[in-house]
Amino acid sequence: MSAPYSGIFPIVPTPFDDAGALDHDGQRRVLDCMVDQGVDGVCILANYSEQFLLSDAEREMLQTLCLGHVASRVPVIATCSHFSTRIAVERCRSAEAEGAAMVMLMPPYHGAALKADEEGIVAQFRAVAEAIDIPVMIQDAPLSGVTLPVPLLARIARELPTVGYFKIETPGTADKLRALLAAAGEHIDGPFDGEEGITLLADLDAGATGTMTSALAPERIRPIVTSHLAGSREEAEALYAGMLPLINLENRQCGLRATKTVMKEGGVIRSDAVRHPLAPLPAPTRETLLRMARDLDLVALRWGK
Amino acid sequence: MSAPYSGIFPIVPTPFDDAGALDHDGQRRVLDCMVDQGVDGVCILANYSEQFLLSDAEREMLQTLCLGHVASRVPVIATCSHFSTRIAVERCRSAEAEGAAMVMLMPPYHGAALKADEEGIVAQFRAVAEAIDIPVMIQDAPLSGVTLPVPLLARIARELPTVGYFKIETPGTADKLRALLAAAGEHIDGPFDGEEGITLLADLDAGATGTMTSALAPERIRPIVTSHLAGSREEAEALYAGMLPLINLENRQCGLRATKTVMKEGGVIRSDAVRHPLAPLPAPTRETLLRMARDLDLVALRWGK
Repeated sequence: MSAPYSGIFPIVPTPFDDAGALDHDGQRRVLDCMVDQGVDGVCILANYSEQFLLSDAEREMLQTLCLGHVASRVPVIATCSHFSTRIAVERCRSAEAEGAAMVMLMPPYHGAALKADEEGIVAQFRAVAEAIDIPVMIQDAPLSGVTLPVPLLARIARELPTVGYFKIETPGTADKLRALLAAAGEHIDGPFDGEEGITLLADLDAGATGTMTSALAPERIRPIVTSHLAGSREEAEALYAGMLPLINLENRQCGLRATKTVMKEGGVIRSDAVRHPLAPLPAPTRETLLRMARDLDLVALRWGK
Repeated sequence: MSAPYSGIFPIVPTPFDDAGALDHDGQRRVLDCMVDQGVDGVCILANYSEQFLLSDAEREMLQTLCLGHVASRVPVIATCSHFSTRIAVERCRSAEAEGAAMVMLMPPYHGAALKADEEGIVAQFRAVAEAIDIPVMIQDAPLSGVTLPVPLLARIARELPTVGYFKIETPGTADKLRALLAAAGEHIDGPFDGEEGITLLADLDAGATGTMTSALAPERIRPIVTSHLAGSREEAEALYAGMLPLINLENRQCGLRATKTVMKEGGVIRSDAVRHPLAPLPAPTRETLLRMARDLDLVALRWGK
């Protein structure tokens, strides 16, 4: 394997038309807009891709489309979570065959109540890791409803050599990253965070080497990561302070709708529709968001114009 | 519409082979075994069908197979839940087109955290009800993580005439059924319960007219319902007392594995495998279950012999 992946790997949004159908042309433009911003890689079919609102056929089509269109310009992480180990393995095999650089999975979950015990979690990640040759990232996110204690993550990192990436996005991510690195640092290729970068500076301080934000402003968030990794913490702190108001608005008020709103305004996509039961962004929040995006002169706001 | 559906509509289990692939022949035998027990109808692709461990392609194939094989011998309820309203509607249209007598849906949910608000819930059920002509059943189950207050269910029953069936399987089902019938009884065609019948007598006392157990022992649970509905509460109580030890073992120790275990022993299916990360039934529980099934001379334990 080459050097571990690091930097910014934003989540690729899934554009729909106003009637809720996939927008293939818009999907390609989204990818180009992200690559043009100098991202270190992208992540497809994640929660900010509205994976939970897609049919299997749609996610398979999108995976093929995205991997084909990115065409190795940057590495692509494909999300492959499924409660069934058998289906998770099939998804990972398909992602590898189509050219994904890495797969990402939450631990097995369904609804509010269905989870695996620790042995079941380890067994699913083992089955996945043994089925493919590309690296595996564990996504530790509250949506799964599954608690992944540090000793369990450390055990998986030790026992499964290709499971080397950990996207932590739980309350207390910085502390968890620090504890995980202390427990199994030599087995970890990529301690990453997520959540739009809302805890990015603290996570970088704790040892994160990568972040998985939205596709809203990667060109402005990437320098925070690169300057911190280069040892310029002061510069990173100043850059972070400049981006935090937007990140805060996105993380707490907009969610995955922020990227779509700005990309529509910027001519990247034709519609900012999200699928029901998600609701459109309220007008006042939309206005605040676009004003901030203009003040920051975001690439996504002018890319298609 | 004919008379409202009532009686016992057990959940159809999904048999796999030992390697975890669907067992088509076994699926047909499961359906025949259930029909032979005099069920009033069956329900496919529900949680006890391991719906959360199936791919979309598998659930579509199973829906076609089951509806084709039952061939209107009894009415079939098809579960169509999906977080996406668009996909839920597609599933319901497909179920109706293939001959389902009714569709059942949980309110929209995904993982531990994603839910719709009340308007979003109503909107999804409205979209479904308006897309098809067959009746709709709301499944009020803890797995969704969504709380459905009685006033909301009553509003839906009033506003959406074809949403007339309610499968309540929450803590306090009997009280909830009673409150729902008091609030909107004239709009409710079928107050049903589930959970293997663990609260059946109390639910019948509260006004339930149907139950959705597993396929373990419908021939022995149906008389509890029919005698109660015929006014013979004393007989229902005695029959219920005789079945409660088995129901208790199933509900608290076995879950969906009980039916598979007994059907395998009875020659209905070749394997009692459940998909990982579900775990096989521990040997001592299996032994207790089979002894009780033998003492009760269950049809499923001798049907294939």
